[in-house]
Amino acid sequence: MNFRATIVLCILTIISAFSVPNSHYLASRMTSSTDNGPLEIYYFHLFAKVGSLFALEHSGLSYVHKKPEDWKAMKAELSWGCLPILKNLPAEDAAAFGGAELGQELAIMNYIANRVPEKMKGANLSEDLVSQQLYGEAEDIYQALARIKTKLVTGEAAVNFWSKDNIDPLSHNRQFGIYVFLDKLEKFIQKCGKAQDGKFTTSGVTVGECKLFATLCACKKIEDSLLQDFEGLKRFYDRFEKEPATQVILSGAKTDGVLPQYFLKPDEM
Amino acid sequence: MNFRATIVLCILTIISAFSVPNSHYLASRMTSSTDNGPLEIYYFHLFAKVGSLFALEHSGLSYVHKKPEDWKAMKAELSWGCLPILKNLPAEDAAAFGGAELGQELAIMNYIANRVPEKMKGANLSEDLVSQQLYGEAEDIYQALARIKTKLVTGEAAVNFWSKDNIDPLSHNRQFGIYVFLDKLEKFIQKCGKAQDGKFTTSGVTVGECKLFATLCACKKIEDSLLQDFEGLKRFYDRFEKEPATQVILSGAKTDGVLPQYFLKPDEM
Repeated sequence: MNFRATIVLCILTIISAFSVPNSHYLASRMTSSTDNGPLEIYYFHLFAKVGSLFALEHSGLSYVHKKPEDWKAMKAELSWGCLPILKNLPAEDAAAFGGAELGQELAIMNYIANRVPEKMKGANLSEDLVSQQLYGEAEDIYQALARIKTKLVTGEAAVNFWSKDNIDPLSHNRQFGIYVFLDKLEKFIQKCGKAQDGKFTTSGVTVGECKLFATLCACKKIEDSLLQDFEGLKRFYDRFEKEPATQVILSGAKTDGVLPQYFLKPDEM
Repeated sequence: MNFRATIVLCILTIISAFSVPNSHYLASRMTSSTDNGPLEIYYFHLFAKVGSLFALEHSGLSYVHKKPEDWKAMKAELSWGCLPILKNLPAEDAAAFGGAELGQELAIMNYIANRVPEKMKGANLSEDLVSQQLYGEAEDIYQALARIKTKLVTGEAAVNFWSKDNIDPLSHNRQFGIYVFLDKLEKFIQKCGKAQDGKFTTSGVTVGECKLFATLCACKKIEDSLLQDFEGLKRFYDRFEKEPATQVILSGAKTDGVLPQYFLKPDEM
């Protein structure tokens, strides 16, 4: 092959490398910058929907945590009227929605995953699917906690959620107690093959794992012995808890003090 | 520059093109195949959580819809104990979770988005964030419908959800009525700048838009005049409804007959 042919072949190879599906996506990622200062995550001073705090800290992205100063005024201006939100994204990342703040925890989590993919999204598409499933399952637990907190369910149902006798995996999924969820998660971490290391994925801190840890942590504040019969999950929890980035959030160093417990033990327990 | 130096430079350029964040991801996508036959989406014969049906059809991926034959037996074996699930993924896509089925609607949607990114994920990261936010907001509406369906809220609260007088955007987000949600979605489509075309994104059929359409469609079965005062949203709905892929799902051609309405008008309305 002569010199010119080699150059042409190289150029074609480079072009083809960039024209696989979603190459536009990489271009967007590569030009993302934080030249306009750190990301700003707004959330209440509560330990509730805090998965994105753990994800931001583990990602290594530059960010600050802020509390809403005048919540009513802020709420009226938000796309979805609720927190958390992420502000101060690089302009191109918010361009498709008019430069507005990024709302919906799920969207914030997937934004973090896209900014630091190897660690926060997973080592490949299959690990991303592990992370997404964990996000979904943790959100299901979160919704159950919220139904109890807001008294949408009776005191009896609340006690039943926490009962060690409520372990029927064939009940309707809206009636799943916490130990049904934990049993499913334990089986899942075993399927993923990294339970010995206390991880679901290679990094162990994908956004789904951050969301799961945040949710299990809220549960452990209510029932400390929660994980004692779930070996893999307990390894996951203990390993994740010890990571320095996790300690930054748990210590309150980034949130102007330790975030107070939000979900409480039902009175009837 | 001599010949050898040029070759080395070309090789380095190719390597760098592949070593941008998450290049492993592209490799996974490129090798994904459906050699093992079509994807299989399992869901009940109901018009409820059907966003992934619309997304599969719009994606152009090869798939079949199946109903569980023995739901109790199936439920016991699923990672999360609920539907929808996606089966028969290429082996490498399910490898990180032991080859199990893919559960959690959110994970199924993001899988479809990753398989056909330009159309289903969006033209760039910012459009992906539009799609993710729509998914989150549509799920919030879905949860409200489910709370009514399962009688978690009173009849009075159910009527209030559908009331045209319930338009206070400063109420707690768990008390948002449907017209508060619609007002937020209308403002959002205007922010996105493509309301004239009835789209939130360039393709108009990202997974978030599929989820939103499915949810609005369930609402319209209860209140047909739902969108009359929301110009952009109405354009979105009418345009999406007319798309051939949408008609395939609405007609029941892929689901062994039209899916029956699941969420009903509250008795008290």
